Formats: sequence, C-alpha cells, structure tokens
Amino acid sequence: MQLYSFFNSSTSYRVRIALGLKGVAFDTLPVNIRVGEHRDETYVATVNPSAVVPAIVDGQFSLGQSLAIIDYLDAAYPEPRLIPQDTEARARVLELSSLISCDIHPVNNLRILKYLQEVLKVSPEQKDAWYQHWIAQGMAGVERLLSRHSHGQWCFGDAPTLADVCLIPQIANAQRMRCDLSRYTRAMAIYAHAIEHPAFAQAAPAMQPDYSA
Amino acid sequence: MQLYSFFNSSTSYRVRIALGLKGVAFDTLPVNIRVGEHRDETYVATVNPSAVVPAIVDGQFSLGQSLAIIDYLDAAYPEPRLIPQDTEARARVLELSSLISCDIHPVNNLRILKYLQEVLKVSPEQKDAWYQHWIAQGMAGVERLLSRHSHGQWCFGDAPTLADVCLIPQIANAQRMRCDLSRYTRAMAIYAHAIEHPAFAQAAPAMQPDYSA
Repeated sequence: MQLYSFFNSSTSYRVRIALGLKGVAFDTLPVNIRVGEHRDETYVATVNPSAVVPAIVDGQFSLGQSLAIIDYLDAAYPEPRLIPQDTEARARVLELSSLISCDIHPVNNLRILKYLQEVLKVSPEQKDAWYQHWIAQGMAGVERLLSRHSHGQWCFGDAPTLADVCLIPQIANAQRMRCDLSRYTRAMAIYAHAIEHPAFAQAAPAMQPDYSA
Repeated sequence: MQLYSFFNSSTSYRVRIALGLKGVAFDTLPVNIRVGEHRDETYVATVNPSAVVPAIVDGQFSLGQSLAIIDYLDAAYPEPRLIPQDTEARARVLELSSLISCDIHPVNNLRILKYLQEVLKVSPEQKDAWYQHWIAQGMAGVERLLSRHSHGQWCFGDAPTLADVCLIPQIANAQRMRCDLSRYTRAMAIYAHAIEHPAFAQAAPAMQPDYSA
C-alpha cells in the first residue's frame, strides 16, 4: 500500500489514522501541496486525476478522496470496522463525518486561504477571522450532534469510527490556527482521549517524514 | 418520510433525486435558508442539530447531511441501489461524489458567498470570479475522473448512482451562475441524459413548492 500524503493535510491525516487503526503497512509518498506537487502531470495522469491529496495505490488499484479511501479500506481490510454496518449507527457516523468533511474542512483548506490572500488580498486579520468564523459555526454543529447522540469514550461508543477519524484532524487544525475550542467540551474530551491512541498519535503531522515546522 | 429542503440548495436537490429514484413518497417541508430558517431553534433542537438543509425524518429517525441521508436510504429502501456493493465500483462512485461534495460544492454555497459580500465586501465581479474559479478547478478534476473511469450513459454504467445524484445539481448550479462548462464534454453528456429522467426532472429547483425566481 502506498499513501500519497502531505504532513499537514487533514484529509491525508484521516487516511493515516485509518491505516494505523487497521494495522495496514504503507509507504508514505510525500506530495508537497505548498509548492503545487499535487498538480504534477505524472501524479495526475497515473495516480490521482482529482489532483489533490491524499491518494492510495493498493496493488493495481489507485483511489483518491479520503472518505472514499476509508470506505474502501473498510471493505478491503475490514478489521476493525470504521463505518458501522447497522443502519442507524452508520447514519450517525456518516452524518458527523460529512458535517466535518463537507461543511467545515473545505472552506478553510490551503487553496482557499491562498486565494483569499493572493487574489482577494485580505489582511492576515481577515484571514484569521474567516478561519475562526467557519470553525466556530461548524464546531457548534459538531458539539450539538455529539451532545444529542454521542456515547462512550469515542464519538459513538467504545471504539473509534470514521467520525473520530474526521474529528481529530479537524480539531488539531483548529488548534494550530489558535481557535478557542474550550466551549466544545464533548468534542474536546473525545480529542484528549483519541490523541493518546497509538494510531492517532503516529498519524499526527509532526510524526510524518515530510514534516517541517 | 418528511424532507426539510430549500428549493435552490443543491444538497437538498441530491436527496430529492434519490427519493425520486427510489420511489419513496415524501412531504417537502421548505426551510428558507435565505432568511435563516435553518437556524430556527425548534428545527435545530428537534430535527437537525447541524442547522443546515437538508434533513429527513423517517418515522422516529431524523438525519441530516445529504450523503449520510442517501447512504441511509440505500439501506432502508434498497431498490434501486445508488451506492454499488462491489468494492471497486463503490470506490469509484464515492470518489467522484466526494470530489463534488467536499471539494466543489462547499466553497460556493450561499453562506460562503454571503460572507464574501457582507463581511469581506468583495465586488460582484470578484464574487463571480471566485465562483467560476472553483467550478473550473473542480470540474476539470471531475472531467479527468470521468475520462478515466466513466462508462455507459451515466457516470458509471447504465443506471444512475450517487455520483450522478451529486453531479447533476452541481452542474445545474454552475449553469445558473453562468459558468462556461462546454469543455467538460463527458460530464455535460451525462447531464443532458440525466435531466430527461423523471426523478431528476421532478427534483429540479423550479419544480419545488418553495420555488421563487
């Protein structure tokens, strides 16, 4: 298994956690999105036509998009399962995962912040306010969902699921951007628990071969 | 089945298509996100803690997030299946669906455009350029994925899947915002085919009870 990854990409971070939880050995192939390596012609032509990270190559099969990758891993390497099979339990996990991966993460990722700064010429203060606004709005929804449905030490029960795999990189990102997260008590309790888990710890940006401060 | 929906929301549009394809009868309960009805206290407390549209209530079970809803519908109302069960076919459908729902749609939705205009005070031209930039970048990825993997009259084969359910509202949105889509020939051929299908036609914004020009 090969993983095309950027240390600071939270979608790459998700896949690293999933591979770690499943104990799947993989080689990390760094793609430096800060200098546009994800748009490299060979990468786009042979690995990932979407021209983003992450992507996996598993034997002859290559695949992009973190949520699609993790769904694939759940079929190809089913233990431990990260997306429950029970209809309603599964729906809760996918609902929280979608809230994070569709409503929070995309509006604050690197390409958006670059466009704000380079094209729209926003100030550093406006950029930070943008970031914090969407974190505050999104995390309020996360916390309400968790307050209603969460149980156990993880988002949903006594084992990590895709919801935790999405939540922990999102919180790590928000902390890096100095967002005040103290009011999201349930989410932060799950975060504190999760980062002690070896699969989560080893997937962190600072543990990656391409890490730079 | 009750669907909380806004006529012009493309995530609501996805769920309307899915319900139509499956022949599930539903009542549309309009939520006018232009005037903030999605933040209504009762809606958030009793229907959708994420405070967005769409949401469904199916008997005692309420659920938000379009992709989670469609995955739920595939379990609860399995015919016709919109997310294949075969591992690799499923991965392709989820990859394209994620590209649209995570990388394209979120950065151009109403709340983002409002923030650009109301907080960052961008000009109408800058707002349009923003919209068209992300459509061009995202649709180029969609077209490359389709060129590599698409077959049949739909995105993947001879029946619609979640990929088509995500693609058609995204293209409809981009057309409404006057994006030039002519270069995405495979995507546009699928679009032309899909909008003739009754489930797609009946799910269109102009067919909804809360439609306004």
